[in-house]
Amino acid sequence: MHRIYNFSPGPAILPESVLEEAAQGVREIHGSGMSVLEVSHRGKQYDGIHAGARETLLRVLGLSADEYTVLFVQGGASLQFALLPMNFLADGRTANYVNAGEWGSKAIKEAKKVGKGEAIEIATSADKNFSYIPKGYAPTPGAAYLHVTTNNTIEGTELYDLPETGGVPLVTDASSDFMALNRDHSKFSLLYAGAQKNAGPAGVTIVVARKAFLETALGGLPSMLAYKTYVDSDSLYNTPPVFAIYVVGLVAKWVEAQGGLVAIEKANREKAAVLYSAIDELSDVFYGTVTAKEDRSLMNVTFRLQPKYAELEKEFVAEAAKRGLDGLKGHRSVGGFRASIYNAFPLAGTQALAAFMREFAAAKG
Amino acid sequence: MHRIYNFSPGPAILPESVLEEAAQGVREIHGSGMSVLEVSHRGKQYDGIHAGARETLLRVLGLSADEYTVLFVQGGASLQFALLPMNFLADGRTANYVNAGEWGSKAIKEAKKVGKGEAIEIATSADKNFSYIPKGYAPTPGAAYLHVTTNNTIEGTELYDLPETGGVPLVTDASSDFMALNRDHSKFSLLYAGAQKNAGPAGVTIVVARKAFLETALGGLPSMLAYKTYVDSDSLYNTPPVFAIYVVGLVAKWVEAQGGLVAIEKANREKAAVLYSAIDELSDVFYGTVTAKEDRSLMNVTFRLQPKYAELEKEFVAEAAKRGLDGLKGHRSVGGFRASIYNAFPLAGTQALAAFMREFAAAKG
Repeated sequence: MHRIYNFSPGPAILPESVLEEAAQGVREIHGSGMSVLEVSHRGKQYDGIHAGARETLLRVLGLSADEYTVLFVQGGASLQFALLPMNFLADGRTANYVNAGEWGSKAIKEAKKVGKGEAIEIATSADKNFSYIPKGYAPTPGAAYLHVTTNNTIEGTELYDLPETGGVPLVTDASSDFMALNRDHSKFSLLYAGAQKNAGPAGVTIVVARKAFLETALGGLPSMLAYKTYVDSDSLYNTPPVFAIYVVGLVAKWVEAQGGLVAIEKANREKAAVLYSAIDELSDVFYGTVTAKEDRSLMNVTFRLQPKYAELEKEFVAEAAKRGLDGLKGHRSVGGFRASIYNAFPLAGTQALAAFMREFAAAKG
Repeated sequence: MHRIYNFSPGPAILPESVLEEAAQGVREIHGSGMSVLEVSHRGKQYDGIHAGARETLLRVLGLSADEYTVLFVQGGASLQFALLPMNFLADGRTANYVNAGEWGSKAIKEAKKVGKGEAIEIATSADKNFSYIPKGYAPTPGAAYLHVTTNNTIEGTELYDLPETGGVPLVTDASSDFMALNRDHSKFSLLYAGAQKNAGPAGVTIVVARKAFLETALGGLPSMLAYKTYVDSDSLYNTPPVFAIYVVGLVAKWVEAQGGLVAIEKANREKAAVLYSAIDELSDVFYGTVTAKEDRSLMNVTFRLQPKYAELEKEFVAEAAKRGLDGLKGHRSVGGFRASIYNAFPLAGTQALAAFMREFAAAKG
């Protein structure tokens, strides 16, 4: 088949080798006479898949299995927005939130709804349409946690320098840059990520957390809403999303085979540079929406047509699609264009988009 | 490949034609140049999959889209145990639970934990190890709902005659007999089912509910824990478990192609009869664990060796596995044997097991 360049923000492009192996697994897994969709989650076929995915993820992130654990939860980041305060924001305590975009805003909103303690927004870039990453804030001493969003999928910003927290546990929604940068992951007490951008298909949320932090979780919660349930059962309290976890394991192995996060970050920087160079070079026609260039995301490159060409937005998207450059429409809340170039997105696809942008600018500019 | 007879209780056997189509979808969906794992949940490829699955399910269940809706949730029946009382068990109200097995017990336990009102067990078969279905109870007048479990996966009982509720909304955990019987589904105000037995792979929970009942849900809940969120967004508030829903749609179409629930129930009765006949005929060696024969499940056939042969349990399972009869070990909480024979399980597999049982009985009895 002819694969298109899929710039979709998530669910998003996955490595071809992973898709091939996953398709085979749907037919039959490891010579078992069963599809991966049919095997018991308490049987030996799945045991290896489950344990293997968890181990590979920790290895890729450079975390020790003594200190950290991986949980597989369902419900996406949106459910984590509620679980986090339910589990950690006790009566009389404070949690800090940095609001750098639509998803961060939702995280705070849910925390205010469910937390027994107080959820406080300590920094935001809402004043300038989330076009930069807030910096230079200090968490409330003794706060239950400080919540950030490492990559803002909609606004196209990314948090590169993690904040100093003065001992406050750092928690992040890493949904859109999980396994994309060679970060020091031991700075996080907990990170969560919907798999459907860099880690696999939709249907599983990966929670990576410091065991000591998880032990401080509150009790009395419904079983499926308590992190403790997932810890105590190795995420097998009930039937986990077997196929999604299987594919996450394949993707994590693919990341390792690429050379791990050092190689992945290098490739991501190259890809993003191709697009940001084109945007800056073609500034008569295009502009990037992130005003603080140092905060430009490696994952979601957001840009627009200059006001005098604004009416050509639909044409740009339609023309691009004809050339196999798909999914470039910006999020419905902000418009414009967004090129999502997660780990599996090829350099050649960014070059093809840059070439098309040059052509478009030459024709219209 | 050589497919084995997979008696696993869930995740469980799926139709071969569905697996073939799903494997192709993982490679490329509908000539799009993308895998079904890669398409945006807000794009046109997925629109058709999502709407098609919901429509087919309602059609198969014989429900009108004017009165009923289908929601796709994550977290399994175990999360529904909490969502149901969170959404419907208001302060000062009562909810009734029939406890006919381990899963029903868990449902009550969660309701007592999270409901603002009172969760009452109005009937149970715990007195005889859940070996029958409780009958002849009357719901509390004005109760918020009456919760039953239509099939008890672990204990091997099934509820055939739905209770008269006197206007109290009937709710069921239908996880292990969803789409397996030609029931009058309009008797239910809400039913939920983890997909991984009769409806698809693990990773999505299907909620089918009367719209008027959903409108009575309580407010103020975290977004992902409010049925209203799923209703208002057509289950697209955040990224749904795309692949699981895709396969559920394929399975629902397969059910239709078999002749719908009339044909499915007929086939299920034939398959179960093969095994129950063997158990009753070989009563010197085997016995069924369900004492009320009219309550025997069509889905999970539970049986044991007579006490004098009890030490042969492991041998039976091992010998069966050698003949490609896999997954016969009973649930770890009860032991013995369990042959799970969901919709996609072939008649020939039940015949093969019955033949093996006869052979085993002849050799050992």
